[in-house]
Parts: sequence; structure tokens; C-alpha cells
Amino acid sequence: MDEFALIRRYFHHAQGDSVVAGPGDDAAIVTPPVGHELVLTQDTSLAGRHFPLDMAAADVGYRCLAVNLSDLAAMGAQPLWFLLSLTLPEVDEAWLEGFAAGLFELADATGISLVGGDVTRGPLSVSIQATGAVPAGQALRRSGAQVGDAICVGGVTGAGLLGLQHWQQGQREGAAVTHFRRPVPQLALGQALRGSATACIDISDGTVADLGHILTASGGLGALLDEAWLPLGSPLLVDCDAQTQRQLQLQGGDDYVLLFTIDPRTTLPEGCHRIGTVESQPGVRLNNLLGQPVPLTLGGWQHF
Amino acid sequence: MDEFALIRRYFHHAQGDSVVAGPGDDAAIVTPPVGHELVLTQDTSLAGRHFPLDMAAADVGYRCLAVNLSDLAAMGAQPLWFLLSLTLPEVDEAWLEGFAAGLFELADATGISLVGGDVTRGPLSVSIQATGAVPAGQALRRSGAQVGDAICVGGVTGAGLLGLQHWQQGQREGAAVTHFRRPVPQLALGQALRGSATACIDISDGTVADLGHILTASGGLGALLDEAWLPLGSPLLVDCDAQTQRQLQLQGGDDYVLLFTIDPRTTLPEGCHRIGTVESQPGVRLNNLLGQPVPLTLGGWQHF
Repeated sequence: MDEFALIRRYFHHAQGDSVVAGPGDDAAIVTPPVGHELVLTQDTSLAGRHFPLDMAAADVGYRCLAVNLSDLAAMGAQPLWFLLSLTLPEVDEAWLEGFAAGLFELADATGISLVGGDVTRGPLSVSIQATGAVPAGQALRRSGAQVGDAICVGGVTGAGLLGLQHWQQGQREGAAVTHFRRPVPQLALGQALRGSATACIDISDGTVADLGHILTASGGLGALLDEAWLPLGSPLLVDCDAQTQRQLQLQGGDDYVLLFTIDPRTTLPEGCHRIGTVESQPGVRLNNLLGQPVPLTLGGWQHF
Repeated sequence: MDEFALIRRYFHHAQGDSVVAGPGDDAAIVTPPVGHELVLTQDTSLAGRHFPLDMAAADVGYRCLAVNLSDLAAMGAQPLWFLLSLTLPEVDEAWLEGFAAGLFELADATGISLVGGDVTRGPLSVSIQATGAVPAGQALRRSGAQVGDAICVGGVTGAGLLGLQHWQQGQREGAAVTHFRRPVPQLALGQALRGSATACIDISDGTVADLGHILTASGGLGALLDEAWLPLGSPLLVDCDAQTQRQLQLQGGDDYVLLFTIDPRTTLPEGCHRIGTVESQPGVRLNNLLGQPVPLTLGGWQHF
């Protein structure tokens, strides 16, 4: 099967109204929505580095798209189009079928259309570029946090790292493993936060590390988090003791949950909770259960 | 150097007016031009497969972007933005500096802005997604060729393959090697052909193979090429006998020269020449120098 036949068989799929021409020409043609800005992101996932070598093909397809959609969510954008560069060691039809099924399951659920890309031979790698739209001027940025803002997360964090740990221990089931295999990009939340969140990011490096990106981009601010505000007993972090639950929430990674700052008087969308407050003094501190502030390092997962 | 520092050092660069926010957030923010459609393409280049392992870093940067810009040229689009996913085996600062220099030399010359992407560790690979704009409805497609149209190319083809052959023989200079290292995307030609060319493609698989893509997309048409119309003596194909020159022009690849069909009464843009005529009978035939039509295979370079 040559590249063209492979693309036709596995990657021609229904497309949204904004797609004038999808795969099959030198490039796709699309119509951008009037009055909107576009939001562009690209992420490459390498087998053995960004996902386990033995992850099911459907989960690989789902997860690689989810990571990109989470970036769109963090900008408050509505997904429109994506392109896929797939590097494969060989043409394995069962693998391709699974990959396409997982990919399009999430694409269809979120309304994003695959419009192009390419397939090459080499070590397994998935590079996706995704485009979304926001009403002009309303994109959520990392740079708008203000002293006194509440620091909030869109759900319980830590399941990304815990799921990876469970996977490495041989578990293939359970809430954390499912979250690791199929993180759900918080697109509706990102769009709901337009006009109210002052800054937003999706948590890929860990809560404290990604908070550091917001604080740096917002002019070198600091933060005080409160250990007592970290929820305990989430089904995502089942079987962990309280201290581990708190540590996972602060230092995990691969969560793809939104982290945002917002006026503390704002009613938070459902499922969100506050974990701290933006301060003027640089650095991130944690109020422990005794009410004593202890410094936190900004270290997160290093991509490189 | 972590991923963020590396991106700041090598890939923060001046951007066009349409870029609201470039690298440094979860995604870039851009303003699409009013009244235009967007054209999206993505190509991955693997070291040792799409470019030689010992190619200079600056040429790798230039060439990987050129390949994508050539797809925009084939659509008649004006380049706007691109994203870069760079996979590197190690952080080699001299290599990165060279790569960025070659990349931005072409980006600046063609007015395209790098707005995002990522850097990961792995076997050397360059995945670029490029976006351009065309006035709504004016994109050049592969599908509009008509019986009786002239089949034309935007320059002498064959130097891509000849340059690769020279490279493999150890040559590092000369017109063909330069064309192979730094193909020039025909952006001005593509834009000039809007409204007149009936179909267009850029030659990556070889003239006959890419002509096959046009004929298939245009409803299963055929073509008669004329050997006598293939120019001889181009400095690009120096030192080749006449038969080799003709074969390179027809069967080469990696040319990134535009191939288009057009009403035969149209005055061709400078540098273009006619090589044949669209016919209703499927298949590609070549009128040899005796005026006898001989069949040509559609085989080109198989990407996979």
C-alpha cells in the first residue's frame, strides 16, 4: 500500500462545513470564521518517550490529539482543523485501524476535522498541528494574572503521573490509567473562562511548574498555595495516602487539566476548585496544614 | 538548556503583523486576512530519508521549510505562518544555530512567520506545518484540468534528482546540488497563475507521476507529452547527454517546480514552458523525436 492509498483508506473522514478541500491536494483549503482570531498549536509525540511503546493504537491516536486539543482549550478556543504527520516503522493495518478509530473518536466528539498531513517511514512518531478559533481579542493567555487573583484548577490533578506509574507497574485498568491513556481536553471549560479568567494554561509539566509559567509570563509574580485546599479522596487518586495525593496534585504532570487565575469573587464553573492566591512576591510557596508557608520548587517534567 | 530556553535562544524571531502572539504560550494567536481562504500543509522530513545525514544544518533548515512553501505555491497561496516540531538526538548548539539561520533566511525572504511548535529528543526529524492565504475561491487545485489544456512547467525539471545523485557521488557544489540543497519554492508563479491555471501541483514525485495526480483528480484524463518540447542545455542539467536530460525532466523528483495546466492561448509567465497537452484518453504518452507516441509509466518516487 503506497502513502496515498494508506491515507485514503484510514484518514479520509467526514469534515466540518469550514473545510473547502481536505486531504488529496497539495494542501487543504479552509474558510476561517469571520470576526475571530485563530489559535495554532503543534505537538509531536514519540513512542517510548511521550507514550508507552505497548500502548494500544486507539489510545495513541486519542492521546496524541488530546494533547493538542488541550492547548486549544487553554486558549479558550473552539477546535476547527488539524493536520497529522505520522511516522511509522511499517504498514501494520490492524495498528492503523486502531489508531484511526481512537483519533476520530475524539475528533468527532470535539468537532475538529482532519484536513491533511503526511505519512512517512521511520521510528513511530505522531506530529499533530491543530487550529482553533476565538472571538477576536478573547483568547486566554498566560500573561494576565493579577495580584490577589484566585489560582484554580479545572479538576483534581495528579492522575496523569499516577496513571503512568500504574501503567509502568503493569496495571491496564482503573481511573488513573484511563486518565493517562485518554486525557479529556477541557474545551468547554476553556471557552467558559473567556472574559473571566485572567490567565490560563493546561497542566502538562505539573501544577507548580505550569503555575510558574503563568507567574513568569505575568511579569514575575508569585503565589501562595494552600495544602488544606487540595481535595482528598478523589476516585482518580484512589489508594494513595493523603500526603501522596497532595504531592501528585502539585508535582504531577500530563494532567491536561486547566490551571487558571481569576478574580476571587467570581463563581467558579462546576468541577473547578481554588488552590491558592497570586501574590506580588516572586516564587511559589505552600501553606502547610499547620498554616506555615514552605517554599516549593518550580521543577516539573523536563521535556528535553 | 531546557526546551523553553532552547526555543527562546534559537527560534524567537521577528514576526509579521498578523501575528498577535507567537511562541511562548500554549498556542499562537493570529489574525486571518479578511475575504481569504486559508491553505494548510504539513510535511515531515526525516534525516537519512528526506535529506542526507551529512547535509549542512543551514541547508536542512532551508530545505524543510522550502518543501512546505512549495505546497503553498502550488495552491497559489501567500505564506503567512508556520509551526516547527523539531526532534533532535542531542542539543548541538552549532547545529541549531545553522539550522535556524537557514530556516529564517527562507522565512524572511518569503514573509512567513514562525509562530510555534515544540522540540523533543529523538532521531533527527523536522515536521513543519505551514499556512497561507488565497482570495476566497481562487486556490489552485489539482482537479480542474480540461481536455486541450497546455501542460506546462515553471522551469527546467530534473535537477532535484540529479543534485541528489551528485551529492551521493560526493559533489557538494554545482547548480544541481544547489537546487537539491536549496530548492526555491515558486510562490510568485503560483500567485500569478491564480485565475488562469486550470490545475496545479508542485513536482515532488517527478513530472510524469505528479501529472498523473492532476489527471486522476481531474476525472481520469490523459496527456500527450512531446519529447521535442523538453529543453536541452539548461545549466541545471549540465554534463548530461540529451537522453538523460529528457529522462531527468520527466522522471526526476524533488524538483519543487510547479506543473500546471492552462488554456493553450494564454501567454505563459516568464520561465515557464509547455511540455504537452491534456487529452481525453487516460494515461500519459510521450511523442518521441520521430513523432511516435510511446506510453509512459506513472511511477515516481514512492514516499512509503
